[in-house]
Amino acid sequence: LRSGFGEVIYCSGKSDKHLIKIFQNFNERDFNVLGTRASKEQFLKVKEVISEAEYDELSGIIKIVKKSIDKIGCIAVCTGGTSDIPVAEEAAQTAEFFGSNVVRIYDVGVAGIHRLLSKMDDIRKANCVVAVAGMEGALPGVIAGMIDKPVIAVPTSVGYGANFQGLSSLLTMLNSCAEGISVVNIDNGFGAGYISTQINRLAVRGNA
Amino acid sequence: LRSGFGEVIYCSGKSDKHLIKIFQNFNERDFNVLGTRASKEQFLKVKEVISEAEYDELSGIIKIVKKSIDKIGCIAVCTGGTSDIPVAEEAAQTAEFFGSNVVRIYDVGVAGIHRLLSKMDDIRKANCVVAVAGMEGALPGVIAGMIDKPVIAVPTSVGYGANFQGLSSLLTMLNSCAEGISVVNIDNGFGAGYISTQINRLAVRGNA
Amino acid sequence: LRSGFGEVIYCSGKSDKHLIKIFQNFNERDFNVLGTRASKEQFLKVKEVISEAEYDELSGIIKIVKKSIDKIGCIAVCTGGTSDIPVAEEAAQTAEFFGSNVVRIYDVGVAGIHRLLSKMDDIRKANCVVAVAGMEGALPGVIAGMIDKPVIAVPTSVGYGANFQGLSSLLTMLNSCAEGISVVNIDNGFGAGYISTQINRLAVRGNA
Amino acid sequence: LRSGFGEVIYCSGKSDKHLIKIFQNFNERDFNVLGTRASKEQFLKVKEVISEAEYDELSGIIKIVKKSIDKIGCIAVCTGGTSDIPVAEEAAQTAEFFGSNVVRIYDVGVAGIHRLLSKMDDIRKANCVVAVAGMEGALPGVIAGMIDKPVIAVPTSVGYGANFQGLSSLLTMLNSCAEGISVVNIDNGFGAGYISTQINRLAVRGNA
Amino acid sequence: LRSGFGEVIYCSGKSDKHLIKIFQNFNERDFNVLGTRASKEQFLKVKEVISEAEYDELSGIIKIVKKSIDKIGCIAVCTGGTSDIPVAEEAAQTAEFFGSNVVRIYDVGVAGIHRLLSKMDDIRKANCVVAVAGMEGALPGVIAGMIDKPVIAVPTSVGYGANFQGLSSLLTMLNSCAEGISVVNIDNGFGAGYISTQINRLAVRGNA
Amino acid sequence: LRSGFGEVIYCSGKSDKHLIKIFQNFNERDFNVLGTRASKEQFLKVKEVISEAEYDELSGIIKIVKKSIDKIGCIAVCTGGTSDIPVAEEAAQTAEFFGSNVVRIYDVGVAGIHRLLSKMDDIRKANCVVAVAGMEGALPGVIAGMIDKPVIAVPTSVGYGANFQGLSSLLTMLNSCAEGISVVNIDNGFGAGYISTQINRLAVRGNA
Amino acid sequence: LRSGFGEVIYCSGKSDKHLIKIFQNFNERDFNVLGTRASKEQFLKVKEVISEAEYDELSGIIKIVKKSIDKIGCIAVCTGGTSDIPVAEEAAQTAEFFGSNVVRIYDVGVAGIHRLLSKMDDIRKANCVVAVAGMEGALPGVIAGMIDKPVIAVPTSVGYGANFQGLSSLLTMLNSCAEGISVVNIDNGFGAGYISTQINRLAVRGNA
Amino acid sequence: LRSGFGEVIYCSGKSDKHLIKIFQNFNERDFNVLGTRASKEQFLKVKEVISEAEYDELSGIIKIVKKSIDKIGCIAVCTGGTSDIPVAEEAAQTAEFFGSNVVRIYDVGVAGIHRLLSKMDDIRKANCVVAVAGMEGALPGVIAGMIDKPVIAVPTSVGYGANFQGLSSLLTMLNSCAEGISVVNIDNGFGAGYISTQINRLAVRGNA
Ligand SMILES: Nc1ncnc2c1ncn2[C@@H]1O[C@H](COP(=O)(O)O)[C@@H](O)[C@H]1O
Ligand SMILES: Nc1ncnc2c1ncn2[C@@H]1O[C@H](COP(=O)(O)O)[C@@H](O)[C@H]1O
Ligand SMILES: Nc1ncnc2c1ncn2[C@@H]1O[C@H](COP(=O)(O)O)[C@@H](O)[C@H]1O
Ligand SMILES: Nc1ncnc2c1ncn2[C@@H]1O[C@H](COP(=O)(O)O)[C@@H](O)[C@H]1O
Ligand SMILES: [Mg+2]
Ligand SMILES: [Mg+2]
Ligand SMILES: [Mg+2]
Ligand SMILES: [Mg+2]
Ligand SMILES: [Mg+2]
Ligand SMILES: [Mg+2]
Ligand SMILES: [Mg+2]
Ligand SMILES: [Mg+2]
Repeated sequence: LRSGFGEVIYCSGKSDKHLIKIFQNFNERDFNVLGTRASKEQFLKVKEVISEAEYDELSGIIKIVKKSIDKIGCIAVCTGGTSDIPVAEEAAQTAEFFGSNVVRIYDVGVAGIHRLLSKMDDIRKANCVVAVAGMEGALPGVIAGMIDKPVIAVPTSVGYGANFQGLSSLLTMLNSCAEGISVVNIDNGFGAGYISTQINRLAVRGNA
Repeated sequence: LRSGFGEVIYCSGKSDKHLIKIFQNFNERDFNVLGTRASKEQFLKVKEVISEAEYDELSGIIKIVKKSIDKIGCIAVCTGGTSDIPVAEEAAQTAEFFGSNVVRIYDVGVAGIHRLLSKMDDIRKANCVVAVAGMEGALPGVIAGMIDKPVIAVPTSVGYGANFQGLSSLLTMLNSCAEGISVVNIDNGFGAGYISTQINRLAVRGNA
Repeated sequence: LRSGFGEVIYCSGKSDKHLIKIFQNFNERDFNVLGTRASKEQFLKVKEVISEAEYDELSGIIKIVKKSIDKIGCIAVCTGGTSDIPVAEEAAQTAEFFGSNVVRIYDVGVAGIHRLLSKMDDIRKANCVVAVAGMEGALPGVIAGMIDKPVIAVPTSVGYGANFQGLSSLLTMLNSCAEGISVVNIDNGFGAGYISTQINRLAVRGNA
Repeated sequence: LRSGFGEVIYCSGKSDKHLIKIFQNFNERDFNVLGTRASKEQFLKVKEVISEAEYDELSGIIKIVKKSIDKIGCIAVCTGGTSDIPVAEEAAQTAEFFGSNVVRIYDVGVAGIHRLLSKMDDIRKANCVVAVAGMEGALPGVIAGMIDKPVIAVPTSVGYGANFQGLSSLLTMLNSCAEGISVVNIDNGFGAGYISTQINRLAVRGNA
Repeated sequence: LRSGFGEVIYCSGKSDKHLIKIFQNFNERDFNVLGTRASKEQFLKVKEVISEAEYDELSGIIKIVKKSIDKIGCIAVCTGGTSDIPVAEEAAQTAEFFGSNVVRIYDVGVAGIHRLLSKMDDIRKANCVVAVAGMEGALPGVIAGMIDKPVIAVPTSVGYGANFQGLSSLLTMLNSCAEGISVVNIDNGFGAGYISTQINRLAVRGNA
Repeated sequence: LRSGFGEVIYCSGKSDKHLIKIFQNFNERDFNVLGTRASKEQFLKVKEVISEAEYDELSGIIKIVKKSIDKIGCIAVCTGGTSDIPVAEEAAQTAEFFGSNVVRIYDVGVAGIHRLLSKMDDIRKANCVVAVAGMEGALPGVIAGMIDKPVIAVPTSVGYGANFQGLSSLLTMLNSCAEGISVVNIDNGFGAGYISTQINRLAVRGNA
Repeated sequence: LRSGFGEVIYCSGKSDKHLIKIFQNFNERDFNVLGTRASKEQFLKVKEVISEAEYDELSGIIKIVKKSIDKIGCIAVCTGGTSDIPVAEEAAQTAEFFGSNVVRIYDVGVAGIHRLLSKMDDIRKANCVVAVAGMEGALPGVIAGMIDKPVIAVPTSVGYGANFQGLSSLLTMLNSCAEGISVVNIDNGFGAGYISTQINRLAVRGNA
Repeated sequence: LRSGFGEVIYCSGKSDKHLIKIFQNFNERDFNVLGTRASKEQFLKVKEVISEAEYDELSGIIKIVKKSIDKIGCIAVCTGGTSDIPVAEEAAQTAEFFGSNVVRIYDVGVAGIHRLLSKMDDIRKANCVVAVAGMEGALPGVIAGMIDKPVIAVPTSVGYGANFQGLSSLLTMLNSCAEGISVVNIDNGFGAGYISTQINRLAVRGNA
């Protein structure tokens, strides 16, 4: 990261004109480029001028990969429900883009704790866990209580009523009594994918 | 309830003069009386005029028991941490006052899920579970996911920072994806003890 | 519940592909299936592959009934206004799906208390009351003050201005001074229908 | 009002020096003076320099009455619980100070609706009703639904947890579906006493 | 009011089927009918079955007037800006429907205080003032400071940013230090029109 | 400012040891020093080691003046009520410390608009106005509507109930429709005194 | 300003009929006119009747310039990101309309502090800085810490999740510990452009 | 961690009886013990029964060290102001207790960015940075923008007014646009010290 690994563009809310200019800019300098929170329309505009651009509709990620990416170590990305998968994919694909191996463990929410318990062996192998959950948001705390690696908690805006667009899960995660947990913004899969890659890299290479 | 089982007085914020008058009123009519949220000072004032009054400092409950209470069925009262015990005791002693057997299962919070798992057999025997938790407030949802009896969730104001005096745990509980859970006010042990007794009574006696 | 009675799918926000796969899954295993918060579009997609699926537009409920359902006991579902009916129907139809008899008592809000008073005899016959209200949300507290059975309060997002999408009615219900009331999430008819069925079942069958 | 009827001083938070100066000022000009939200300490300081000052500890009101007050018409001041009485007294004594007859109807909260119903005849005689309630705050709406005179609703900060210092009752009252209700600030007995007196005066004297 | 003066239907969020049934119901009983918060589409549906129904697009009000309405007394309806006029018209037309004369004084917000000062003579003639304002919401307090009649304050959701859909103006009005002011829900022109008519009627007829 | 004019210490929450060390530090370097939000206890500790320190109890300001201060131009500091004076004095004394002439115009709140109107000539002479108000917070907007100089608005935490510790006045000020107004933190007299001095200096000396 | 410099119309939410009437009104009186927050549709309607009207789609500003505008002094308008540019342009074009020279320094957010540091010389030349930022909103505080001219901070609603439509950046700016900063409403480029022009004018012309 | 490294007790709110029992429990099992958020009174009670207990008043930490602790790697703990030091010390001493070397870099807040810039070389050497800040809370984002190691952000409740007990800094940190940042609860130095030690350990030892 920050040494030729690739550049990131936050696409949401940018005008087409601005967006294309920024993509072309990076593209000319031969970087790998990651665009987040892009709509399909934005992607199609970018694709017109940069034909090797790829798009994942689920996560809203645009990728332009010029130099092949070597993946190291392991990050586990977990979700409470299936509706959290778009955010989880933003995290997973960000981590992969920056060179981490990712194992996906989806739909293991705490309302049916045995699904989670049956996956703990896989989760324990990772250097860092990204735990994504909406509604009550209890998943990261329960995982953090069972492992001794850092857990990056991602609240999602999935839910309704007293969920208040993710506020409920955000607060749950900030208040977790488990040891070894920290939190990113609601729906911020990118942020979680990025910092978990920093940690994964430290685990594999040390502070080099 | 509502048929000679006993009367309830919410003591907090009442002037001594008012409070004593209300207690004497009920006492003369030979009811069992339950006072909630009473300070030690309030109890001592009441004790001066009604010598058989008893006080539990942990829960802040004053009790005057004139007719002996027969206990039926079973309610499980659980807490996430030790700091939630005062609220749990308000629930437990309210339930006992109105004639329920209570089993106490304290300090089984989800940050160390195995403590909870090891107690599930006891919890499953109850007709109704009162689950008390502060901070992240995930306990009731995890329990509700493992049993098919009603869970009454009680958020507590235990915590700091983004807990916002119990708001965090309240929202967690309202947003729980588990089936069979409903919620009372922050720190409202009394309310949970009362409704769980209604449910326990229905389970033992039916709609008689 | 949890023993062949049927499975539940939360449809809102799921992709068509995911949704159909989950429905087919349960369908093959010969369960009764309940889908909640489904749009008409979602229903039509499901109907294409599972022809016996039924849909109720008012409540957004999809039902696939393979084994006939025996109904027992009685739950009263009440609303403050006519705009609360969709949420009330989600509660009522959930309760019926899981085997409860339901009596519907709609539009008896407290701003015209005599409408409510004239229905109290019907309400008193139920083992459990689900009280649904938006705007000021006072209905559940007033009912709870008149009966000695559990009241499950459901705030709705009906209203405008300082209602804040149901926050006002949610807070009213949590703060009710009446005895025997607990609360589910804003607009969560399903949750209320489910726990009231648990209670109704205990009243009819005991803890069997 | 505003024509020699008397002057009002909001005492809370004023320094002793400031407070005494303002009281002396009015006193010299031979007005009747009403001080609200005064502590006992403040009263004693005022008493030292103005010996005819009177104090009511419950409501925190200081009164200096130089010209006798003729009372007209009728205002009903109602409360949900006994803990709301201090605010109700602020309203009642303000209304009396400005020349209204007041009838007090306390502890008629909606959690026991029959207490309220039995008082409706008295309430109906008033030109205007001040309805004071904490916790769930449903009283004003229920009263407004039964009468065709204006109801001034006063939320109080009585309660705990999700009451949020009176926010819950404030929102309840603002969202009431009953016709003929408007709301003042949390704990603002003074404001309710004042505007209800304006209305009472209009009813007795017309727009003179 | 409440004696043949007319009936009110809150149209927003009602299904066409429900809405038409309620309108027909009242129509058959020969009441004047007022529908509030109605869309143009709703009106056209109603018009199909009740041909004398009229609609005002600005305020969203449907009116069916069978018995002619005599107007008495005077209410002043004021707004801060031109964007507040729809809410003000809901208030004014409600007041007229229930038999009050209304004088409209629009666009006199406090950011240009002289516009307001030049209108004070007109405002002073009314028995009651309805003051409607968005954004900062200071208008009602400034008016109340200059008159000795009741001011009914209506916050509107006009504004952006830290206005939070009318919360800002609502809080301003609740906190006004002026004497003789009370507040209805955000955008609740109907509520203000109704209670001001009750007051106007008391001023003209007394408590008859 | 920032060139030998003086240094500022925010005293609140600092330990005595820390505080004294910082004061001594600046003192030795022969700066004028301004301490804000200091308690009397803190001042006495400072006084022990720096005898020329002065204290103003109303504003909580400690001053050590070594080089005499020349005052230029003019800032008007206005308040809505007398309870806002401590914050206003923090602003006024900060402005004077940094070299501005200050005219104080207190207790001219909008609930009695004529008090304010009678002072407008004085206010118009200033290069910049600091307008301090609690409760409804409407003063700055009304002033800004009458002058064409910048108005720095200071919300105070004076009030109760729906004031929410100054939130109400803060929102009012941010939403003001008047031209030429900007806002500092609740109770931040220091910040207002500082930026108004920057503006005053520009007006007198230009961008030198 | 306020002396023939031009008139301002807040277009958002006004009906076409109202809007055109107001524009024509000013136009006839031969003022320069500035319309803010106008949609393209609104502009086209205005253009039909006033052919010299111009529109800037980015900022939503309509301009009718009849008397040529002389620009004086200098205001620096800075943004944290490219998504803040629409709000910044509202500020810049407002300042230019009222006669200030403006230098634009965009996309210098604090997450890459060296971009900002490299522009400080330009920023230091201005009489006043308008600093526009969304998300974390730290830009104004960092700038204010490096200069001794007033900084007008404009929070934007750019962001997602715990940004809560600009609340996060608003709070950041209000809490800045830097000296010489005050804040306008979220997305209020107009307000910042206006007050910074007042300051710029004072700096160039003094209090004339 | 979790393998004999030591046990943690959250002391705040525990009764003396409970607290001592827990300390004795761990002490007997020959663990190193860390008590957080302990008052001096609590420490003295513990000291009576466990004489080797040590206390740090600034951070509120009780330590009982039985097995000597080897420290590895490096964590940088930074603060914005001096008032944030107690929380920073909780983080630093927690990290040291669990075996990390810690470098402290205090009072480098962004309102004077050059203080921070001059320390960047030290900060860059660490495997992980804990950045502690109150008020505007911008420090962690600015640091994260300059380094490629993980930054754990700790908002503090230092500030007043629109800080809302740390909410402002919490939101700032969650919304930071910098890459490589995640957040713990307000004032939760313990949580930051713990997770940064997990990361530091991974960096030194890998996933062993
Ligand atoms: N701790 C409590 N929390 C909430 N409500 C309570 C509590 N204790 C008693 N109550 C209710 O308050 C009523 C008594 O209130 P009061 O008349 O003010 O003493 C009882 O009938 C209960 O319904
Ligand atoms: N615009 C409005 N805002 C608030 N309440 C209203 C409004 N219009 C009508 N109402 C109230 O809602 C009641 C009718 O509600 P409903 O039975 O749902 O049509 C009326 O009797 C009025 O009290
Ligand atoms: N009352 C106050 N409110 C807000 N900020 C202040 C106040 N007094 C001083 N400051 C700022 O706080 C800085 C000093 O903070 P500190 O280094 O913690 O003493 C000063 O340079 C001012 O910018
Ligand atoms: N200052 C703190 N803030 C948040 N959590 C803490 C703190 N100190 C300890 N903990 C957590 O609380 C647990 C102990 O809680 P308890 O069993 O109540 O003593 C520890 O294992 C930690 O995970
Ligand atoms: Mg862990
Ligand atoms: Mg269950
Ligand atoms: Mg009951
Ligand atoms: Mg009525
Ligand atoms: Mg008045
Ligand atoms: Mg102005
Ligand atoms: Mg500066
Ligand atoms: Mg970084």
